[in-house]
Amino acid sequence: MQATTVKEIYREPNPFLNQKVELSGWVRTVRTSKTFGFIEINDGSFFENLQVVFEESLANFQEIGKLTISSAIRVQGELVPSPGAKQPFELKAANIEILSVSAADYPLQKKRHTFEYLRTIAHLRPRTNTFAAVFRLRSMIAYAIHKFFQEKGFVYVHTPIITGSDAEGAGEMFKVTALDLANPPKDSEGNVDFSKDFFGRLTSLTVSGQLNVETYCMAFRNVYTFGPTFRAENSNTARHAAEFWMIEPEIAFADLTDNMNLAEEMMKYLIQYALDNAPEEMAFFNNFVDKTLFERLENILSSEFAHVTYTEAVEMLEKEDFKFEYPVSWGMDLQTEHERYLTEKIFKKPVFVTDYPKGIKAFYMRLNEDNKTVAAMDLLVPGVGEIIGGSQREERIEVLQDRMQEAGLKAEDYWWYLDLRRYGGVTHAGYGLGFERVIMYLTGIANIRDVISFPRTTNSSEF
Amino acid sequence: MQATTVKEIYREPNPFLNQKVELSGWVRTVRTSKTFGFIEINDGSFFENLQVVFEESLANFQEIGKLTISSAIRVQGELVPSPGAKQPFELKAANIEILSVSAADYPLQKKRHTFEYLRTIAHLRPRTNTFAAVFRLRSMIAYAIHKFFQEKGFVYVHTPIITGSDAEGAGEMFKVTALDLANPPKDSEGNVDFSKDFFGRLTSLTVSGQLNVETYCMAFRNVYTFGPTFRAENSNTARHAAEFWMIEPEIAFADLTDNMNLAEEMMKYLIQYALDNAPEEMAFFNNFVDKTLFERLENILSSEFAHVTYTEAVEMLEKEDFKFEYPVSWGMDLQTEHERYLTEKIFKKPVFVTDYPKGIKAFYMRLNEDNKTVAAMDLLVPGVGEIIGGSQREERIEVLQDRMQEAGLKAEDYWWYLDLRRYGGVTHAGYGLGFERVIMYLTGIANIRDVISFPRTTNSSEF
Repeated sequence: MQATTVKEIYREPNPFLNQKVELSGWVRTVRTSKTFGFIEINDGSFFENLQVVFEESLANFQEIGKLTISSAIRVQGELVPSPGAKQPFELKAANIEILSVSAADYPLQKKRHTFEYLRTIAHLRPRTNTFAAVFRLRSMIAYAIHKFFQEKGFVYVHTPIITGSDAEGAGEMFKVTALDLANPPKDSEGNVDFSKDFFGRLTSLTVSGQLNVETYCMAFRNVYTFGPTFRAENSNTARHAAEFWMIEPEIAFADLTDNMNLAEEMMKYLIQYALDNAPEEMAFFNNFVDKTLFERLENILSSEFAHVTYTEAVEMLEKEDFKFEYPVSWGMDLQTEHERYLTEKIFKKPVFVTDYPKGIKAFYMRLNEDNKTVAAMDLLVPGVGEIIGGSQREERIEVLQDRMQEAGLKAEDYWWYLDLRRYGGVTHAGYGLGFERVIMYLTGIANIRDVISFPRTTNSSEF
Repeated sequence: MQATTVKEIYREPNPFLNQKVELSGWVRTVRTSKTFGFIEINDGSFFENLQVVFEESLANFQEIGKLTISSAIRVQGELVPSPGAKQPFELKAANIEILSVSAADYPLQKKRHTFEYLRTIAHLRPRTNTFAAVFRLRSMIAYAIHKFFQEKGFVYVHTPIITGSDAEGAGEMFKVTALDLANPPKDSEGNVDFSKDFFGRLTSLTVSGQLNVETYCMAFRNVYTFGPTFRAENSNTARHAAEFWMIEPEIAFADLTDNMNLAEEMMKYLIQYALDNAPEEMAFFNNFVDKTLFERLENILSSEFAHVTYTEAVEMLEKEDFKFEYPVSWGMDLQTEHERYLTEKIFKKPVFVTDYPKGIKAFYMRLNEDNKTVAAMDLLVPGVGEIIGGSQREERIEVLQDRMQEAGLKAEDYWWYLDLRRYGGVTHAGYGLGFERVIMYLTGIANIRDVISFPRTTNSSEF
């Protein structure tokens, strides 16, 4: 008898119909009458359950009928067409071995639970339909990202997590130390003496791999990072976590247009990959999490993304007869309300906003001819606002040095970054994509805590 | 005219022969005579260079002849069969645009450099043949790992990097904090008051995702992690780094034999993937880094891995007429010298050593019937010693609680880990594979600092 999985059984054409199979899995529900019963079994391999039918002829019929939810069993039997309409086939058990009986206080009983409650049992929530779907999709999309870039010949670079640079400028950083915090070594002036720390200096958790990956871009042409990044910011919102994963491609001999084309192609690839490879999960999200999901994703797939400069976008918003919480004016950073208005009301599809004022963007973004704006781009999508931020990088060393000085950065801290411009620097560009934002977008899940296995946020590092 | 890459040009059959193409890349060498010259150009897309021929008819002939190494150019011309034997074709330039001239003090001139020196210019070393090969292979093998597990239906889990648990027991941990280290808040007893820290408690960088990923194993059956892990250990060796990437698969309804079968299949898959997908790089390693490489890898591919218990292995070593630095006796942890002797001299192929004394292994490994050994397995390979360590996990809650007590661990710190045994626990197993060890093994590179883009070791966090 062949041991198999529910995933294999749901393949088309079904390779096991009218054959004997062995399945191991966890009990989702048990219903019994006097002479027979049904078990919904899930074995983790597939979103759907399989129905097992068992009869009183089994020696342990009584015990099986009393099985608690989440108990584990091994079933041997024949896979037969199902007389009911609910499922195409069922497993007629010839033998059921009880592998473990779950304690009766198992927290995931049949009733509905709030997402808030489920976060307190994050070690068990992937056993629910919603989180099984979320985290299987997350896994698939992580793979799709690699597949997309690898098939284009991009080199995946593991940029460092611990960084000696405290000036990446993208946000508050966590410190990393091996010192005794209660009693750290001090120098003669009473400051903590980090020369005695593990790395001989103050180190932090990275907020971005971009500066590091640019060095590999100048060797391999097309590269990407995909790894964890960190922010020590007390922003207790549904969209921010202290630890999250980021994808940062970087392309050489390429400008802002190449960058936007890559971003658009990637977004469409990921959506199509989800629809093609996780149809059960995506249908679940569309039915139970966000009823506009398919419509929203199809709209992206069939659209050519729009392009507008920041200056044009500000003019458009100023003309609108709509009362924004923050009035729009040139020079300000766009708020989520403005971003969503642009993509949802004005363009009704994804839109790249380009050429932002230099004052609100990072020092490494390429200065435009007008001396006022930089070759930046943000991709705004309906329902979310900004999902990607990127730019062409400043490859002219004198301009870069000026911009660093304006930003209050010391050239000697960036000697290796400046070297890239000394030795064979070329036009290059890149962008960053928050992985969790993509998963939220693809699932309709509204809170970032519900797309991270064990989320790390202010005052929360449980598990 | 079609812009393309060197990688495309080296495809077979060559799609561009006798056609006009445009290429952008970096100068590796320039040689000139009075009337013509040659440039070796590398564009980052492929390990090999392409030879460009240029003649005095070009308006900027003199400038091109003086180009420094690592300058960037864009060439338009015809790809023609090469009269020389060194390369099958060359690019006959009709036009060469100089994109940037590299400064004359570029550190990577033609002479050979030591690996030690190249570590000091880690931002430039991927431009050398050796490191171009290492880091392209690293990228490919990272992808191969995902491909292997995803095609088997495994779910990829991003386990947390920041952990509130300070007792994973696998090594010294780095602390993560947002407190002011010079002046941290103190409680009434004068201890650092971590309740005021970002997470409201003391947090650290993870040393392993295993305990976390076991929770997902009990939902998805087959899962894996692939992420950075950390050790704050002052081990200044060629095999240890403070930050490295680890792969940790975990399989349910599976025992130690299933675990070893998976590990063997994975190792062979990765080797085959490297040989098939990076033939230029692998040939380079075999020629210039380790002349026994191909022989060693072929030996693994064609072997069925051996299996021996720890107890048998100790008996075998005791019988050998060989003076080990550390004499062997039952109960001790095997040293690298013993591991290598076993795999290189006794078995002459990879060998799984199983069933180690419980005293030298972690609390979560399943206790054997003999009450003295646990269902652990280490995979030893010639040339390295241990490359994988794993075990069947203890699924019996009483036994696990006893083992935790013996190890001095508090049950309340592991409430969620114990829950996995309360609610539908089943036999499961898994292993850990240090990603850098695999890359060292596949390349013959002897120092871990040379397979990590920007290595983090004692006193070293540059870039």
